[in-house]
Amino acid sequence: MVEYTQVTMPGVIEVTRPVAVGEGVVRADEDVAVGAEIAPAGRPLRAQDLGMLAAAGVTEVAVHARPRVAIVSTGDEVVPPDTERLSPGQVRDATASALAAMVTEAGGEPSPRGIVTDDAEALAKTLQAALHDCDLVVVSAGSSVGARDQTAEAVESLGAPGVYCHGLAIKPGKPTLLAECDGVPVIGLPGNPLSALVVFRMVGLPVLRRVAGITVTPRSRPPRRRCRGEVASAAGRLDVVQVQLSDGPERIATPLFGFSALLSLLTSADGYVVIPEAATGLDAGSTVTVTMYR
Amino acid sequence: MVEYTQVTMPGVIEVTRPVAVGEGVVRADEDVAVGAEIAPAGRPLRAQDLGMLAAAGVTEVAVHARPRVAIVSTGDEVVPPDTERLSPGQVRDATASALAAMVTEAGGEPSPRGIVTDDAEALAKTLQAALHDCDLVVVSAGSSVGARDQTAEAVESLGAPGVYCHGLAIKPGKPTLLAECDGVPVIGLPGNPLSALVVFRMVGLPVLRRVAGITVTPRSRPPRRRCRGEVASAAGRLDVVQVQLSDGPERIATPLFGFSALLSLLTSADGYVVIPEAATGLDAGSTVTVTMYR
Repeated sequence: MVEYTQVTMPGVIEVTRPVAVGEGVVRADEDVAVGAEIAPAGRPLRAQDLGMLAAAGVTEVAVHARPRVAIVSTGDEVVPPDTERLSPGQVRDATASALAAMVTEAGGEPSPRGIVTDDAEALAKTLQAALHDCDLVVVSAGSSVGARDQTAEAVESLGAPGVYCHGLAIKPGKPTLLAECDGVPVIGLPGNPLSALVVFRMVGLPVLRRVAGITVTPRSRPPRRRCRGEVASAAGRLDVVQVQLSDGPERIATPLFGFSALLSLLTSADGYVVIPEAATGLDAGSTVTVTMYR
Repeated sequence: MVEYTQVTMPGVIEVTRPVAVGEGVVRADEDVAVGAEIAPAGRPLRAQDLGMLAAAGVTEVAVHARPRVAIVSTGDEVVPPDTERLSPGQVRDATASALAAMVTEAGGEPSPRGIVTDDAEALAKTLQAALHDCDLVVVSAGSSVGARDQTAEAVESLGAPGVYCHGLAIKPGKPTLLAECDGVPVIGLPGNPLSALVVFRMVGLPVLRRVAGITVTPRSRPPRRRCRGEVASAAGRLDVVQVQLSDGPERIATPLFGFSALLSLLTSADGYVVIPEAATGLDAGSTVTVTMYR
């Protein structure tokens, strides 16, 4: 170390502390050996991976492109968020903005396609265009039965193999459609914004990650908390329960309830708890695993 | 629900199930009351917050700008990452790329300023320009003693109140400089890339969040794990220990050791454990809190 040297005459230094052979020297291959893997395929590059690549002089790597995700809203009753006054029966499109934010946060590129009215031809045309230039297509369906069937029909007409299932054993989010048309996954979400956002987090984000080439599962596991209050749940159905964590050092999880149409359930939540299909609910005081919102 | 109606003659429907007053109707103020707070100030907008704002017809909100973070590398020995062949004593700049990624991940906008040689005047000029158009200035100092002193001198000359401290009781990362010049925080990081990245995560990111206007502390708390192997630590010093989590269901945390100059310690880590100042180490089998890398 230069701290332990002094210049005695020009070009000559005195070393004032004993030094062992190799001390303070880093071998060229000490941080990463020749031929060693610097960053594994299938895992998003982290800050330290980029640092290591830079240290090794690697300034270009082949990566998966950020997946483009088409976001299609449907429903005669749905109007753009900037609509000042609503007519009776109208709702502003809350789902598209929230989905776009979730896609961005997960590393994708949202491609909003606006609102399509309940017209089979218009929907098929919009979906066709979306399939053409996106890696994943998400449709938030109109909330009426007819509109839902219409989405299924439109998707079925777009390409093989078509609709895998229409309905999931999950609450909220039962009327979810999963399909694939000519290699592009298509997800039909419920018209209810809360249900749509819960299902997209549970089902859509894993599909997005797969499309993005992410195959390495993170080793993280959400923290466990004590649960205040009991929650009923039907066996054979996955229940997603929104929770708020208390301010105290224990951070007890309190389940939030409410009419499932309401987004305020999500905006006031800190995270959520999943009650598995086999369980019939949570007992008060039981320990739960809370996945936190960012 | 439309499912429980049928059209009996044009303009007339039959309701086939009993309906209570108000059933299936959402009041205009049921999701969010007039005058209620939709999203709290000081917390980054989440997907569901954007959904709720859209539902309420709020398409513009005043937010803090993403903080611009100048990243200045210094040191005669530091060369750009795209340098193919290194001369003896040279190292490629690993820190700047990794810092830029950390800044982006935390919601800031990195503004890389390149590499400044160990020249007091050039450094002062670069820092002056960075202070002028950035909200936070980060300097990764040259690793020699002289270079470090030079950074402190340059920072001191830039504005009041100047240097707060030069040296932190943390390992790795001791030679860290914290300063403020005319309202802009300046952080001088150690020249060692590993130390620089650890300290920036521990000290720089909280400053970045504060500059970004984030005042709401997340309620999340990292998960606790069992620790394999003991770790020694000096009392009076914060120790940041990189850990790897096992693949098994228990996800046991194994501390990673190695010569502290090596970035591979960070690239092979899943997260880190902080040993507080008061502690003198970790016993094997003790329970630790692991903060995960994304």
